[in-house]
Amino acid sequence: MSEGTTRIEAFSDGVFSIACTLLILEIRIPHAGVEGGLWTGLVALWPSYLAFALSFFVILVTWITHHDLMRLVRDATHFVLLANGCALIYVTFIPFPTAVLAASLGGPETSTAVALYCGTFVFGSAAFNLLVAAIARGHLCRPEVDAHAIDRIRHGYRITFVIYLVATGIALVAPYVALAINIAVRVHLLRIRYRLAPSLPTAVGQHAG
Amino acid sequence: MSEGTTRIEAFSDGVFSIACTLLILEIRIPHAGVEGGLWTGLVALWPSYLAFALSFFVILVTWITHHDLMRLVRDATHFVLLANGCALIYVTFIPFPTAVLAASLGGPETSTAVALYCGTFVFGSAAFNLLVAAIARGHLCRPEVDAHAIDRIRHGYRITFVIYLVATGIALVAPYVALAINIAVRVHLLRIRYRLAPSLPTAVGQHAG
Amino acid sequence: MSEGTTRIEAFSDGVFSIACTLLILEIRIPHAGVEGGLWTGLVALWPSYLAFALSFFVILVTWITHHDLMRLVRDATHFVLLANGCALIYVTFIPFPTAVLAASLGGPETSTAVALYCGTFVFGSAAFNLLVAAIARGHLCRPEVDAHAIDRIRHGYRITFVIYLVATGIALVAPYVALAINIAVRVHLLRIRYRLAPSLPTAVGQHAG
Amino acid sequence: MSEGTTRIEAFSDGVFSIACTLLILEIRIPHAGVEGGLWTGLVALWPSYLAFALSFFVILVTWITHHDLMRLVRDATHFVLLANGCALIYVTFIPFPTAVLAASLGGPETSTAVALYCGTFVFGSAAFNLLVAAIARGHLCRPEVDAHAIDRIRHGYRITFVIYLVATGIALVAPYVALAINIAVRVHLLRIRYRLAPSLPTAVGQHAG
Repeated sequence: MSEGTTRIEAFSDGVFSIACTLLILEIRIPHAGVEGGLWTGLVALWPSYLAFALSFFVILVTWITHHDLMRLVRDATHFVLLANGCALIYVTFIPFPTAVLAASLGGPETSTAVALYCGTFVFGSAAFNLLVAAIARGHLCRPEVDAHAIDRIRHGYRITFVIYLVATGIALVAPYVALAINIAVRVHLLRIRYRLAPSLPTAVGQHAG
Repeated sequence: MSEGTTRIEAFSDGVFSIACTLLILEIRIPHAGVEGGLWTGLVALWPSYLAFALSFFVILVTWITHHDLMRLVRDATHFVLLANGCALIYVTFIPFPTAVLAASLGGPETSTAVALYCGTFVFGSAAFNLLVAAIARGHLCRPEVDAHAIDRIRHGYRITFVIYLVATGIALVAPYVALAINIAVRVHLLRIRYRLAPSLPTAVGQHAG
Repeated sequence: MSEGTTRIEAFSDGVFSIACTLLILEIRIPHAGVEGGLWTGLVALWPSYLAFALSFFVILVTWITHHDLMRLVRDATHFVLLANGCALIYVTFIPFPTAVLAASLGGPETSTAVALYCGTFVFGSAAFNLLVAAIARGHLCRPEVDAHAIDRIRHGYRITFVIYLVATGIALVAPYVALAINIAVRVHLLRIRYRLAPSLPTAVGQHAG
Repeated sequence: MSEGTTRIEAFSDGVFSIACTLLILEIRIPHAGVEGGLWTGLVALWPSYLAFALSFFVILVTWITHHDLMRLVRDATHFVLLANGCALIYVTFIPFPTAVLAASLGGPETSTAVALYCGTFVFGSAAFNLLVAAIARGHLCRPEVDAHAIDRIRHGYRITFVIYLVATGIALVAPYVALAINIAVRVHLLRIRYRLAPSLPTAVGQHAG
């Protein structure tokens, strides 16, 4: 009944594409008659642009990760559905910490806003760890998937979780370092995905990271 | 002409995924310079987080229910389409009572806000009862679906309707109890769905609740 | 190359489902501490609920109409695509006159708001007339479609256009009558669609109205 | 593995349809009790209507262009995915410069707003140039696509990039001329697409511009 997975993927895809498109609504246009003119007002919005680009990139990489993961699965149980629900609520939530980040970046509350932002990723990573655990526990992988692949993925997800947790701690003292760590993790995930892809069997190779 | 059902499902899926993603727009970021700093402002938003998580969960379970129901149907008549329209207008409406709930939870108007929230589910349940009735009346089930299955589903839907109605009444005197009842019903629906699924024929078993 | 039509339909479906879901964002929650409490505030929002339900219904019927129409078409030309774009910009625009209606209904500007609302449907009907004309002119109907079917549809669309135009005029003197006419037209369209459907060949019968 | 391309297209389609539907949220309804009544308030919103229609048209044409381009591709690499991500972040961003344009058109800041608007298209064109370069570099075209087709497309994209760049410069001195150039380019792209389509092999002919 891979039909079930198709519907879950379609629904999830909808949430992913809407969440990343809604991000733009958080950038408010400068008030007319702001001192220094429109140009100054537009330049002053740099934290909004940065937060927008960052969150867009995060959602895009999360979408790829989610897509890769679901491709391993032949069926969905109760637990998979709930864990996937947790992953989606995380994706849906992202516009909020993004807006807080945009409103606070460069100000006295930068570290609090970045900690909230990084903490959201800790929650999201927990949801994805739960999803992988549900897949592994239910023996839901397609028959052609290497038995050790899901273990390697679980291992990789646990490491990512720890990194996001550490980054949240770092955010409180060095917020920009924490943001840089988060970007670096995503770039690394993308690079692993594509370096492994050609040399390994399709479904397995793309998820070894 | 199952093609008609496919289109209805695709359109409905779109509405479901957008409605749950729009929920996040109702969480407004704390004003800069709020007393006690950003952290205090973020913590004070707990009603918004709770309302967001609750409504997301409700929409997710409703999506599963809707999906299960439509899988029984081979064709759509005029009445099915209108009843489905009522179900979708209910789903689309959810962000509004959610926002009212988020703005009122913990304040003097908690019971009114929860009553509106629960009342929305009464309307939604009425729409789903209408949908099942339209399917039963038009003899629209797929041939492989057990003739008694749709009757059992109708019975289950009627019970849910009564529970939501009672919960709305309870909301006026004990709002948090009413919210707990609503969560319990959804958890129960999910559990029934997955307990019955393996032991019964596919399409029928998943809808006996 | 019916592939082209599939993509156009998928894109159009996305716009339809998003447009009707966005309508809810136009209902603003009552201000805290409004005189008479939350309940009074919620009741005072009746124009918003009415406008929301009305526009949701209109978009739903338009989606059905659009779907029926595109099912006749085997290929899309330059003109079909542009006319479809006009139809979609109309659908996307609907939340704006809906919000104006919600803000004005029952007040001194009711007739202006209703005229704008009805005028939007005149534009929408013009777009659909253009779409049918583009299909007819390009001889783009599927071979199994009766040659006279498209002529009957064009005739029906022209009549609808005139009714919407007249309703807009009526709106200036009797706004609620104009709204009633608009509802009546959609109910009539739905009824014709389903009365004719069983007695006529599939693709043709559903479009004779 | 054209499956990968299908998912990318579905995700991209979601972003395109949401972005163009969100545009309407930027048109704020006139304040009640504005001097001269609702009608005057509605007429005064002409820059919003113009910006809305313009951006809708731009997104629609970009969607067609994107669709045409992806149809040539048999597989997606790391670079294609990143370049496509840049193209999508551009599409998602469009509602912001549109809102700035709507707020400034006809006022003293018109040229700044139009320059931002046109500058957004320069960024978007750069993303599409990157996308074509990634496709060409990875030899990712379907086997049936003429080897010179992708070179002709690259050439066409480079010219469009230069025109958008020049239009942004012109915006600073003659904003309405810059807007007219942008419209003209899109109309031209649409016309080329449909003039070439019938006379050339399917996949190749539609992309020669």
